[in-house]
Amino acid sequence: MASFELLAQDGLARAGQLTLNHGVVQTPIFMPVGTYGAVKGVSPSMLQAIGAQIVLGNTFHLWLRPALEVIAKHGGLHGFMNWQRPILTDSGGFQVWSLGALRKISEEGVAFSSPINGDKLFMAPEDSMRIQAALNSDIAMVFDECTPYPSSHADAATSMRLSLRWAARSRAAFNELKDPSVPNALFGIVQGGMYEDLRDESLEGLREIGFEGYAIGGLSVGEPKEDMLRILAHTAPKLPAHKPRYLMGVGTPEDLVEGVSSGIDMFDCVMPTRNARNGWLFTRNGDLKIRNARYRDDLLPIDPMCLCPVCQPEAHGDDRPPFTRSYLHHLQRIDEMLGASLSTVHNLFFYLQIMREMREAIQRSELQAWAATFKATRANGPVQETSHPHS
Amino acid sequence: MASFELLAQDGLARAGQLTLNHGVVQTPIFMPVGTYGAVKGVSPSMLQAIGAQIVLGNTFHLWLRPALEVIAKHGGLHGFMNWQRPILTDSGGFQVWSLGALRKISEEGVAFSSPINGDKLFMAPEDSMRIQAALNSDIAMVFDECTPYPSSHADAATSMRLSLRWAARSRAAFNELKDPSVPNALFGIVQGGMYEDLRDESLEGLREIGFEGYAIGGLSVGEPKEDMLRILAHTAPKLPAHKPRYLMGVGTPEDLVEGVSSGIDMFDCVMPTRNARNGWLFTRNGDLKIRNARYRDDLLPIDPMCLCPVCQPEAHGDDRPPFTRSYLHHLQRIDEMLGASLSTVHNLFFYLQIMREMREAIQRSELQAWAATFKATRANGPVQETSHPHS
Repeated sequence: MASFELLAQDGLARAGQLTLNHGVVQTPIFMPVGTYGAVKGVSPSMLQAIGAQIVLGNTFHLWLRPALEVIAKHGGLHGFMNWQRPILTDSGGFQVWSLGALRKISEEGVAFSSPINGDKLFMAPEDSMRIQAALNSDIAMVFDECTPYPSSHADAATSMRLSLRWAARSRAAFNELKDPSVPNALFGIVQGGMYEDLRDESLEGLREIGFEGYAIGGLSVGEPKEDMLRILAHTAPKLPAHKPRYLMGVGTPEDLVEGVSSGIDMFDCVMPTRNARNGWLFTRNGDLKIRNARYRDDLLPIDPMCLCPVCQPEAHGDDRPPFTRSYLHHLQRIDEMLGASLSTVHNLFFYLQIMREMREAIQRSELQAWAATFKATRANGPVQETSHPHS
Repeated sequence: MASFELLAQDGLARAGQLTLNHGVVQTPIFMPVGTYGAVKGVSPSMLQAIGAQIVLGNTFHLWLRPALEVIAKHGGLHGFMNWQRPILTDSGGFQVWSLGALRKISEEGVAFSSPINGDKLFMAPEDSMRIQAALNSDIAMVFDECTPYPSSHADAATSMRLSLRWAARSRAAFNELKDPSVPNALFGIVQGGMYEDLRDESLEGLREIGFEGYAIGGLSVGEPKEDMLRILAHTAPKLPAHKPRYLMGVGTPEDLVEGVSSGIDMFDCVMPTRNARNGWLFTRNGDLKIRNARYRDDLLPIDPMCLCPVCQPEAHGDDRPPFTRSYLHHLQRIDEMLGASLSTVHNLFFYLQIMREMREAIQRSELQAWAATFKATRANGPVQETSHPHS
């Protein structure tokens, strides 16, 4: 069984250590998203170099392409994507739910048309568990239904209770498939829409089933930020204290600070990777839209204080000066993939770095002060003046 | 002044050492193409790791985007693209010539419409030299007119003689712009189409002007391979022996072997990089079209004997197994840029590696035997059976 050790607490925030089949994860942690078995534009060795400890793979996507038998032939997703550290897989529930008109949900599972070739497909909790077992992820997620936003209390309750029944079936199927000698973990997912009482009922039901970790699902699905924060603040502290807590699909750097402060240990989001490809770069002093004409001849690195391999190659044993904003602006403007790749490295490093700093701040019982400084600095906006390091 | 030292000869083939402003280049050498200030999908540190000694930048493209003043602000192309080893820039002559109907050639230079925004532009030899001086490339090329294929003897002669007059103007402008303390070099380009006598006349004219190196241009422009080889075999051995010899825009691995055997020292071509992006992978045993369904579940590396960071991460200090053909097939099929990037690394390594091996074979006076083995092995076709390293 995966084990989780709480090392420090600071208010509701926690620093911990999660021991999984493929290694140890220091929490709180951000998990880069590698939908199709690759974090877009970033090699496994670069992911390792910037300190990624665990990545996320998407069950639904990998099931369709390259298909399960190909990955199984590699002994699982680790061998396929050449990543030896832990992997978490989502269940596919959110993805089939996102197909909208293309899918039909019943008690048994979800019938849908393949977005690749139109094939009629069906996914039940048992299928999701079987796929995740073949992917051999360190952490599998229960197959659930995401409650749409907005939903009435009655609809959210119906949806949440279906998810609970699916969670029980997921647990049973997972246990049946599991090699007892391998400490793979299964996490439950709290649903219930924007209703505190339903979140409580969901959590209670999941605890009765019993999981190695607990996630909050159904947030960042279009609701106002205040609703997201309300449900987060209500739910996170109630999650079992001695199990890892995972806030799914969230979010901005500020959301991560809020999540950690509320007691969340794990996060995933496409924001750092997707935004990087569009030229949106995160920094301590607010974000840069690098395609903006103001960066055309700006010789500063993305962030002069950043220690990532793009802003500070020397910190990574590479004897060269930083890449300039001007160069990244150029690469983005000509749609050169090296620009997307370098930008992704920077953004992921930023996300991983703030998690590292929060972890250390928790261990010093200084998270509140750290968060206040972080928020104030971010609000200042990016350094804009141009220096001339090359002239 | 750049200096070139001949270290060994084997038949017509040569091993040498070219000392340039930004470092020493061991010849024979292949130069990866970085059109817009980036070898597509490959970072400078990866280029260095696979042994690239010199890269090529395109004057015409960089002049249009990001524009000269941006690169000048970085002190030149090296600072802009963060590459500290030597750079060769083409002159833009071939690119403006390639615009076809969009350009008009006169004695003075070439008038053309910008393919980016339709702006009316003009490039004369003096402009090309001014731009290449701002790029601060280690090797600049004369601004010439590429002779179309096919061309009559009269047309090829007229075109070649215009190129000679432009070569003289290039030399004069280069000298005027040159910082005498910086050993930047200017190479002449032999033209003359498919006519031996015109190639001789072109070379004679260029020698009278005097250059730090001599290139063969106007090949690989659509002519049959036998014409290319005929002009190569005729011209290469006549190029000044104690100056570097550069065959422009060529070619396949077999072409490189032919070129080296004919006495060529330097090559550039988009083939390894462009083909990689389309899933065409070079190996000792012939080439793989990795998108082909046969590779869907093939667990072999691209080439089991290759020592590149994709086929043999351990040879590069990366503690992980090779990426499988199956994984690269998947990445190519989903158009994931990591696939293009890994494929490019492999193909460039292959090109650089065969140059290293030819250099060593020349030093052992064994090039002919090396070439015979190389050609025979390539003709065998790729290793097709599947092994199961992960199972």
